[in-house]
Amino acid sequence: MAKEKKLVEAITPRDVDFAQWYTDVVKKAELVNYSSVKGCMILRPDGYAIWENIMHQLDARFKATGVENVAMPLFIPESLLNKEKEHVEGFAPEVAWVTYGGTEKLQERLCVRPTSETLFCELYKDIVHSHRDLPKIYNQWCSVVRWEKTTRPFLRTTEFWWQEGHTAHATEEEAEERTIQMLNVYADFCREVLAIPVIKGKKTDKEKFAGAQSTYTIEALMHDGKALQSGTSHNFGDGFARAFGIQYSDKNNQLQYIHQTSWGFSTRIIGALIMVHGDDDGLVLPPRIAPTQVMIIPVAQHKPGVLEKAEELRAQLAESGFHVKVDDSDKSPGWKFSDQERRGIPVRIEVGPKDIEAGQAVLVRRDTREKKAVPFEELVSTLRDTLDTMQEDMYQRAKAFLDSHVSDATNYEEFKDAVAHRPGFIRAMWCGDEACENKIKADTTATSRCMPFEQEKISDVCVCCGRPAKKLVYWGKAY
Amino acid sequence: MAKEKKLVEAITPRDVDFAQWYTDVVKKAELVNYSSVKGCMILRPDGYAIWENIMHQLDARFKATGVENVAMPLFIPESLLNKEKEHVEGFAPEVAWVTYGGTEKLQERLCVRPTSETLFCELYKDIVHSHRDLPKIYNQWCSVVRWEKTTRPFLRTTEFWWQEGHTAHATEEEAEERTIQMLNVYADFCREVLAIPVIKGKKTDKEKFAGAQSTYTIEALMHDGKALQSGTSHNFGDGFARAFGIQYSDKNNQLQYIHQTSWGFSTRIIGALIMVHGDDDGLVLPPRIAPTQVMIIPVAQHKPGVLEKAEELRAQLAESGFHVKVDDSDKSPGWKFSDQERRGIPVRIEVGPKDIEAGQAVLVRRDTREKKAVPFEELVSTLRDTLDTMQEDMYQRAKAFLDSHVSDATNYEEFKDAVAHRPGFIRAMWCGDEACENKIKADTTATSRCMPFEQEKISDVCVCCGRPAKKLVYWGKAY
Repeated sequence: MAKEKKLVEAITPRDVDFAQWYTDVVKKAELVNYSSVKGCMILRPDGYAIWENIMHQLDARFKATGVENVAMPLFIPESLLNKEKEHVEGFAPEVAWVTYGGTEKLQERLCVRPTSETLFCELYKDIVHSHRDLPKIYNQWCSVVRWEKTTRPFLRTTEFWWQEGHTAHATEEEAEERTIQMLNVYADFCREVLAIPVIKGKKTDKEKFAGAQSTYTIEALMHDGKALQSGTSHNFGDGFARAFGIQYSDKNNQLQYIHQTSWGFSTRIIGALIMVHGDDDGLVLPPRIAPTQVMIIPVAQHKPGVLEKAEELRAQLAESGFHVKVDDSDKSPGWKFSDQERRGIPVRIEVGPKDIEAGQAVLVRRDTREKKAVPFEELVSTLRDTLDTMQEDMYQRAKAFLDSHVSDATNYEEFKDAVAHRPGFIRAMWCGDEACENKIKADTTATSRCMPFEQEKISDVCVCCGRPAKKLVYWGKAY
Repeated sequence: MAKEKKLVEAITPRDVDFAQWYTDVVKKAELVNYSSVKGCMILRPDGYAIWENIMHQLDARFKATGVENVAMPLFIPESLLNKEKEHVEGFAPEVAWVTYGGTEKLQERLCVRPTSETLFCELYKDIVHSHRDLPKIYNQWCSVVRWEKTTRPFLRTTEFWWQEGHTAHATEEEAEERTIQMLNVYADFCREVLAIPVIKGKKTDKEKFAGAQSTYTIEALMHDGKALQSGTSHNFGDGFARAFGIQYSDKNNQLQYIHQTSWGFSTRIIGALIMVHGDDDGLVLPPRIAPTQVMIIPVAQHKPGVLEKAEELRAQLAESGFHVKVDDSDKSPGWKFSDQERRGIPVRIEVGPKDIEAGQAVLVRRDTREKKAVPFEELVSTLRDTLDTMQEDMYQRAKAFLDSHVSDATNYEEFKDAVAHRPGFIRAMWCGDEACENKIKADTTATSRCMPFEQEKISDVCVCCGRPAKKLVYWGKAY
């Protein structure tokens, strides 16, 4: 019993040390293992199953908008990476270089893809010739590598898993439309499946993607008040097309450059799931993304009929479409409760001899700990309602947290005070000058997160320099 | 019209040049594009969709046997790769080495994984301590890299996509059971979904996997009479466990080494799909793996009501669960027919003004070209029957081809004659000595494909040396 208690207590409370709490949850919920490859993580079954669910559901949403999946090479020859100037400057310092194949030194170095714009450009140059070949709405699910100095599981790792969509269009308008469309797919997915509210907006030039004309972002707020960039969508205009010479003949037989976009969503979001919903007992997973939605825990399982009833309930719930397991290991019920909580399984069902006698089971919500005795014949419908309610409650709770962690600042003193004392986003006006962004970052460590789609004018002047303001910006400390 | 005809004729007939036919099909069915990275292929939407279907269906079969998916790092530190002697000797000569991260030279080289046994060993060493932690039945879907000198799409490429299962067991028996179980999963999948018959058997020591105690294989026969190793399953015994020091305490609290297996199935199988089922007009895909099962081709689509009817049929068939598209491009029907055939779409439905008047559509099978007028109200049921029949016919045809391309040889003259004049497998007895395998290979280019599970004694002596025979072996030229 002492040992069991220790296992549970081993998660540092959030208020004591949020960073340590995060690391504890990641390890103790068995999402991730470290490997001997510096900065690379192993996704264990429970961690990978979350990513699998994300892939599955997001991919269906992509395909509903006409996306086709492809697979591109892992390597990019140095000369190919070098073709677009801003892009290579953004990425070359952080790529891994392959210099030997077997025992032979390569004539040209290959980088392990940090992102695949250049490969898609090469492909589009080869297969797009006429307006009839457009649009191309391609995507790939893969891992990419960026040589990071300091890493944290999910949030920043040398290798991470993601999808990268890359599209080619005849017109600027169509490219812009696709860029926004995919940002909305991400935002809707976060809201409906992950129960994570986000701020949608445009990045400033300083914060945009290397080689992009404009970058759009969704920004989520973690429980410690720091922002997490959760998905980005870029409009490249015809910049890459000009660098790579990708042209098509239009309906009047005139050569035109294509317009391109790219958009990505990564395993980083699992970090957001943890830090938005988790509590001091561990992970709390929204029912729609939880690989296991229900854990049935038999109580006094050595008594006759208990394990049989647990298995009967499991089969019945599985039949009704729930993802359900029975924990029939030889641990104590108390240990199993803690374990189910640590892993964030949305609902547990306790069933013991007395319950069986009373013709009921006890259903416990992971987020609120609400307990309810439910007659066996109502279990399916009550469980369905409970999971639906929990999903929506989790979103509303996260939304309320976000809304209550936005401060407005109309002058620099207010701004600095907010950064220092009010965790969360700060809304403040900005003149549009990168110098102010740099000063704010240097003074406060807060960065511009985005210029929200929903613009308001909360003051006439830039919060930093006092010159006329151009945009409302969400600022914040960020992961 | 001349240009259209040329496009179709551009596939080299199989009998003229099988290798060129293969390359033509791969390119013209738009499965693959070459990239500027030597030996690496791009899987285009139609190629990737086949792989996606394979992953989806095979993964469900894996999970039904208790497999859990994980994701391991892309890189293996040189010292880790070096831990198991035979394994490193087998793979080190053909790996890509990362030597720089950004601008910094790495202290230790990292290879891009050619396979991940060593990474799984490291993980198991970390997470397996007690008999309660066993078994571990892990798998990952990923790409791996082997530095190949000569490459061909799907069959041999520097990077390819696969799944690699890696399991850890308490006992030798359990490991052996899992090894055979997964080989059977592959064989059943090939038979039931890909319509590919295979020979199941054990590899000789010469042909087994680097580091394995025993390797099992499924071998398929291509239309040109050459064999293709289509999936392998390895029993490692406790060899890796001893090299890595992976021990668990058993029920009596004694330390024991774990027993391990691994098993893999790759994009190579798409090469088999092409070479088993394809014909002179292009790809022929079995209905259960075809991303598009039905292409509706409107005839005289400018006439009123034709496109509407095509769309109505599409919606009706999609509703019934078929994967169906309409080709409403501005090409001619003849071009569309050829295109559908080239891409191997199992069934096309032609519908024009006269068909609509007669209340019917014309249904054409890709494999036999059998044409049938089908009343609209019977379309769903006829289509279902047609696809089922075609799936089974394709298997039976491939099975008949395989069966008629197996020759028995009881002496070396017969053997050499068979290799020279009878494409296919040769069954012959073997003494068990690697010297005979080497001599046969040197004399004929044929290699031992496997010692089939179904052993027979077709002669008392080795076909090569005349000494007493130990095993019946399938021999053949191979990809």
